[in-house]
Amino acid sequence: MAKDGEVQLFGVRGSPFAGRVQVALELKGVQYTYFEEDLRNKSDLLLKYNPIHKKVPVLVHNGRPLAESLVILQYIDETWGNHPIFPQHPYHRALARFWSSFIDDKCLPAITKAAFTANKEEREKGSEESLEALQFLENELKHKFFGGESIGIVDIAAGFIAFWLPAIEEAVGLKLLSSEKFPKLSKWSEEYTNHPVVKENLPQRERVVGFFKARYASIVASK
Amino acid sequence: MAKDGEVQLFGVRGSPFAGRVQVALELKGVQYTYFEEDLRNKSDLLLKYNPIHKKVPVLVHNGRPLAESLVILQYIDETWGNHPIFPQHPYHRALARFWSSFIDDKCLPAITKAAFTANKEEREKGSEESLEALQFLENELKHKFFGGESIGIVDIAAGFIAFWLPAIEEAVGLKLLSSEKFPKLSKWSEEYTNHPVVKENLPQRERVVGFFKARYASIVASK
Repeated sequence: MAKDGEVQLFGVRGSPFAGRVQVALELKGVQYTYFEEDLRNKSDLLLKYNPIHKKVPVLVHNGRPLAESLVILQYIDETWGNHPIFPQHPYHRALARFWSSFIDDKCLPAITKAAFTANKEEREKGSEESLEALQFLENELKHKFFGGESIGIVDIAAGFIAFWLPAIEEAVGLKLLSSEKFPKLSKWSEEYTNHPVVKENLPQRERVVGFFKARYASIVASK
Repeated sequence: MAKDGEVQLFGVRGSPFAGRVQVALELKGVQYTYFEEDLRNKSDLLLKYNPIHKKVPVLVHNGRPLAESLVILQYIDETWGNHPIFPQHPYHRALARFWSSFIDDKCLPAITKAAFTANKEEREKGSEESLEALQFLENELKHKFFGGESIGIVDIAAGFIAFWLPAIEEAVGLKLLSSEKFPKLSKWSEEYTNHPVVKENLPQRERVVGFFKARYASIVASK
């Protein structure tokens, strides 16, 4: 068994949520085995390890499974102390949790509504909500990264906005994250996606754009 | 200033989310000042402290505000170490976070759909989803409390199910949490609501039932 114990990650290439876990593990230099899932034909192991949500990512550490990317990221940080991704002080830790959840609970649903809703009014409402949410993040960016001078949990959670959002914009012909409206967030997006550990773990952009194009087409077709 | 620093809680009587924070503060014996909010006329302080969600609860510790009940609960546990509400081991901490989020992300929306949706089919789907979610919790209960022999974060998060769900059931004429289907959860529900610290902080049942009756009536009327 390796020094870190047996670490397994069940993911899907291109998933921003599995990607979060990969970035955290690699920032910390944790060795792990990666299992690629087929979401149209989920493995028995995935269903056994995550019977509740039946989704990736799942991290299995020495036989003990964990689901939900934000839960996994905290576990990784509490288990492997080097290169901390959470701040030290309880108040700053709390804010980091707040902003990570904000990304999942507010930004992602708004962006999904803006890009992948058949109803035009709903789409416009989604765009408004997205711009409002991105503005909150823009105001929150006070250093190179949300985590300060190095990547932290909020950066990892916001990876969706750095890489997947521009791919969605290209796929569906939408512009939310413009450098005029969000100069700090746009610069951060470049910094983040160019960080060596992040870059190495990003999926091929063309494939992601293709995936979102197909999703958009299926929504347009089902109207 | 008191030994714990200046602790302020902005809540609404009857809110299960503000109630979570009250239980945690009182379990730990933290002295705090409580501010009752009027959600139809929110105070300037609430909007200043929680500009993003504009909701209760908000905890302000020595002038620093925090929103979102699960974020606040973790902050409280990291700030005041006595009577821990999180387990010690990172894996068990991760599971506690998983189940707390499960209650907010799966149980609460399902129960809301089952009780407060105008569409009959949607309501039935909500009931099914609620029963499935409650079954997962039933399977997870292995001790007196989710936290073991004493109250932990999952118990506090699940307080909604112990007290508010039965009030909703009475208000709208629905039965989800039966002792036949969920014997362990039903027993836990009694244990939890009879715990002295919890009991002392519960709102008047009649008022809560009245609140949900009015909510139900407004949905029926708007059909």
